[in-house]
Amino acid sequence: MVRPRIVIVGAGFGGLSAAHGLAGANADVTVIDRRNYHLFQPLLYQVATAGLSPAQIASPIRAILRRAGNVRVVLGKATGIDRKKRTVVLEEGDIPYDYLVLATGARHSYFGHDEWQAAAPGLKKIDDATAIRRRILTAFERAESATSWDERRRRLTFVVIGGGPTGVEMAGAIAELASAALRQDFRNIDPRDVRVVLIEAGLRLLPAFPPLLSAAAQRSLEALEVNVRLGVPVSHCDADGVVVGNCRIRSDTVIWAAGVAASAAGQWLAVECDRVGRVRVGPDLTVPGHPEIFCIGDTAHVPAADGMPLPGLAPVAKQQGAYVARSLRARLAGTSAPKPFRYRSWGTMATIGRRAAVADLGWVKLDGTLAWLLWGAIHVSFLIGFRNRLVVILDWLWSYVTFQSGARLITGPGSH
Amino acid sequence: MVRPRIVIVGAGFGGLSAAHGLAGANADVTVIDRRNYHLFQPLLYQVATAGLSPAQIASPIRAILRRAGNVRVVLGKATGIDRKKRTVVLEEGDIPYDYLVLATGARHSYFGHDEWQAAAPGLKKIDDATAIRRRILTAFERAESATSWDERRRRLTFVVIGGGPTGVEMAGAIAELASAALRQDFRNIDPRDVRVVLIEAGLRLLPAFPPLLSAAAQRSLEALEVNVRLGVPVSHCDADGVVVGNCRIRSDTVIWAAGVAASAAGQWLAVECDRVGRVRVGPDLTVPGHPEIFCIGDTAHVPAADGMPLPGLAPVAKQQGAYVARSLRARLAGTSAPKPFRYRSWGTMATIGRRAAVADLGWVKLDGTLAWLLWGAIHVSFLIGFRNRLVVILDWLWSYVTFQSGARLITGPGSH
Repeated sequence: MVRPRIVIVGAGFGGLSAAHGLAGANADVTVIDRRNYHLFQPLLYQVATAGLSPAQIASPIRAILRRAGNVRVVLGKATGIDRKKRTVVLEEGDIPYDYLVLATGARHSYFGHDEWQAAAPGLKKIDDATAIRRRILTAFERAESATSWDERRRRLTFVVIGGGPTGVEMAGAIAELASAALRQDFRNIDPRDVRVVLIEAGLRLLPAFPPLLSAAAQRSLEALEVNVRLGVPVSHCDADGVVVGNCRIRSDTVIWAAGVAASAAGQWLAVECDRVGRVRVGPDLTVPGHPEIFCIGDTAHVPAADGMPLPGLAPVAKQQGAYVARSLRARLAGTSAPKPFRYRSWGTMATIGRRAAVADLGWVKLDGTLAWLLWGAIHVSFLIGFRNRLVVILDWLWSYVTFQSGARLITGPGSH
Repeated sequence: MVRPRIVIVGAGFGGLSAAHGLAGANADVTVIDRRNYHLFQPLLYQVATAGLSPAQIASPIRAILRRAGNVRVVLGKATGIDRKKRTVVLEEGDIPYDYLVLATGARHSYFGHDEWQAAAPGLKKIDDATAIRRRILTAFERAESATSWDERRRRLTFVVIGGGPTGVEMAGAIAELASAALRQDFRNIDPRDVRVVLIEAGLRLLPAFPPLLSAAAQRSLEALEVNVRLGVPVSHCDADGVVVGNCRIRSDTVIWAAGVAASAAGQWLAVECDRVGRVRVGPDLTVPGHPEIFCIGDTAHVPAADGMPLPGLAPVAKQQGAYVARSLRARLAGTSAPKPFRYRSWGTMATIGRRAAVADLGWVKLDGTLAWLLWGAIHVSFLIGFRNRLVVILDWLWSYVTFQSGARLITGPGSH
């Protein structure tokens, strides 16, 4: 008997979780990703702010899945799906499937202003993070040799657009980098000239959190002298800075953390998507009319009990990946399908800086040191591979004790 | 009284050593480098072969010199020297000097064949190392999905040109990466298809070492199944591979470790240089006719007792930097100049792989495990910053025990 072929596109949290759930199943599983590593995105902002090195938050996909003998890994860029022939179209050649799991994640959205991208890069990939790190560190170097107060002020102004978890974490990390780690290294920079501005169009930070924690996060950021501006959208971005309401903020370094859109998987399928491009899947996470195609993670629009779509969080993607694996195993075995997917939330959290974080665990809301320790413990425990865990803990301890950050390198294009 | 201005161009081993020696001196010292970090070049090949992360072998120059209150650091690219006005010409503006120390290092030389550079990149900068890492790891990925034996063979052939320490270390590290770390991650790659070729135009490897150790290095490499080819120069390089003698070796991955030339400092000065562009300095390391200009490290041609120029090694540059600092302090104090510079060698060493290295300490020659342990201890002890030392030791221990290497990421341009 021919073994069914299961193809998983994307080795993020959702895709890997599905692959793990299918290890040893009676099927040939292929995982396709355009990168050779799985990225632990929740800590990517620490690479962008020179706290961690890329290799500490990325693991080769092949190494992660080494022991799964029925799983093979293909490095390739998917560019479409042929639903009739049941193949995934890669630049490197097509790959046929009997069952397909789409876990292709999300990308930035500039709300129709793609021309802002050059001035305000976003943070999704490792190369994004090293590019933002280069910008931040170069801004300090240029400020050190600036010849006027105006120039120095512009170079030392850092604007973060978007008050969700990524924006809050970036703003806090830049403020700490500026005040603690970099200040003592420069002779001409007055710490009072450094300005970090966090812009959120909504009326509070972290809109997905309870208002109490939004307020706590804002207080923590303001204690780090971050200038938080709420209720005003950005109306323009260019190489000179941003315009917020009627006010231009001149800045060398603008970071986009405002909008995400789903990857192109919905377009490949040509099925019904929501406003940000996520595929509206059924309660079993399959595409309507295509019981052989599953969408999970940021690729899928799954309504929660309150009618809102589930948020784009790692635990959601992981639980969906595990669900799809169970569902496929049931089909292979000919047993009854599992009950409709239901997300079980253990809570959400965001960190601001040294001993400052917020956590909403449902039954309890935390902020301050306790939330910060919990945040650290949970993020380290989810890092893949014992080695990365150990090295990240050591790095964090070292930074905490010395106020120094670990990876302050300007590398890549344009760095000579 | 106006304090004299000392300008040091280059923050490699030589420049940093001079800056350290001048910390607290009665002079204003400026260190200029086009990068914001000091690179520990002897371990750069381990970044290229996915063993270490860039941040583990690079430290921000500002952090290294933080406590030297009379030393300032300028990030900038020197493009010339105006000997009359006594200024260093930077893209960012000129910097005046009373005393000048040129420590601008070396770059690759393709012996007049600069067109080979694209096909056979060299290893001097961090971006070189991550680019070579990308090539090597991508070659394995492509071999995994190769459709013919010919294609797979070409993708799994790695050619290293040059049998000096860098070439020997690269060849050994690639062979180990292929046999131990990567083999178990791929389903279609037969280890017997992997071929590492090391090409040296001379009649033995490591020509600067005693013949006994050259032979030991060759034996160790051959035990790792490296194909060592001596006595034949490369006559051509292109995207398809290399031509050695009459023989074409088809390969996706060619690495240049054959020739170095001095940086442009000699041209800036328009003084007498040797064949590879090093400035012929006097016994006090100053440029003839210019007692205010010193050249050190790879920028200087300094004859040893045997008439040969001193080799381009870190200890040579460091001792010269310290000598220049002593010499300048004597001039500032009006005391007598130190005796002519004399290099004091503690030995040279190169590593091949797990428990395989060679070391020539003058009074004793070592190879095997003992040389390997010594190599590791010395390289770690010279790494700057306790944090990097600890992290590198942990990484090495981890790799040794698990046969896994730590930083197997394909990043940068062209990696999607």
